[in-house]
Amino acid sequence: MTPESAPVVRQRLFYQGRKFNFDVSRRRLPNGIEGEWELIRHPGGALAVPVTPEGKLVLVRQYRFALEARLLEFPAGTVEPGEDPEQTIRRELEEETGYSARRWSVLGKFPLAPGYSDEFIYAYLAQDLEKLAQPPAQDEDEDLEVVLLTPAELEAAIREGDLVDAKTITAYFWARYLLQAL
Amino acid sequence: MTPESAPVVRQRLFYQGRKFNFDVSRRRLPNGIEGEWELIRHPGGALAVPVTPEGKLVLVRQYRFALEARLLEFPAGTVEPGEDPEQTIRRELEEETGYSARRWSVLGKFPLAPGYSDEFIYAYLAQDLEKLAQPPAQDEDEDLEVVLLTPAELEAAIREGDLVDAKTITAYFWARYLLQAL
Repeated sequence: MTPESAPVVRQRLFYQGRKFNFDVSRRRLPNGIEGEWELIRHPGGALAVPVTPEGKLVLVRQYRFALEARLLEFPAGTVEPGEDPEQTIRRELEEETGYSARRWSVLGKFPLAPGYSDEFIYAYLAQDLEKLAQPPAQDEDEDLEVVLLTPAELEAAIREGDLVDAKTITAYFWARYLLQAL
Repeated sequence: MTPESAPVVRQRLFYQGRKFNFDVSRRRLPNGIEGEWELIRHPGGALAVPVTPEGKLVLVRQYRFALEARLLEFPAGTVEPGEDPEQTIRRELEEETGYSARRWSVLGKFPLAPGYSDEFIYAYLAQDLEKLAQPPAQDEDEDLEVVLLTPAELEAAIREGDLVDAKTITAYFWARYLLQAL
């Protein structure tokens, strides 16, 4: 994959958000076309597919203001400055679910929404889970509950359109059908 | 799924883009927390998993300025005002690939990036493909080539991290492992 730059000719708007920035710029594409495009500049997200010793998947049913609904998602979080994505997800797994994992392996990475965001999701498999005696506090603006599902139950939820998001579906199938890890 | 609203207390920024809008607002969440959050307001995306009579998948290798790289994706497009997602994807399939499909079926829908976007992807299976004698013109700011892959070749590309995005991986696995349609 050769990187091909799309240099900024003129920046029109730059909004610095809490977790990501929003950039509107006039750019010149490799094919010579110039235009103005909008872009989320995102530091990346880290996600775990956590599996209990009994083979259950640990998910969160999480409120998302963007959809004004509760979604079924794997634990995940935004990579913070200077952090390695594996550090991010080790922390987020404990905060969001109260579990820690003794065995971590890389699942893969993928672009989430390349039409308007440079975010990559870094996905890990988290095994040998243990319930923490003293789980850390959740972020105060998170509103979620932990849900344990078998692979068959998660597949049923996906099939029924039960608001399972793209990163969760991608990471689940990747772990199950490409790695045969579930 | 009960919708639970997150009413806007005060809007700070509203940017109207070409295909979607960007909104920064102070909101009150169902758990009582108030804060300011950023959101892409998106009309939705429609995607096809197109399959030739020989069982090959039709994808596009598409330049994405957000990543300054070429990604392997299923044909997809933004739903336009008043459009049904199936109309969107029938048009986009012809424009992006030069194929039309005689058989369409619903695969499912899923939220793409619920941390900062309200976009849903509406995914369809497109079968009985025919090459158009006179394909319509591509959008001038699109820079893509058509790629035909077997399911095994696409799985290899995903596994190798060959820049396949979340909507493409989700729709592929959904068609193959939930519907057994590939």
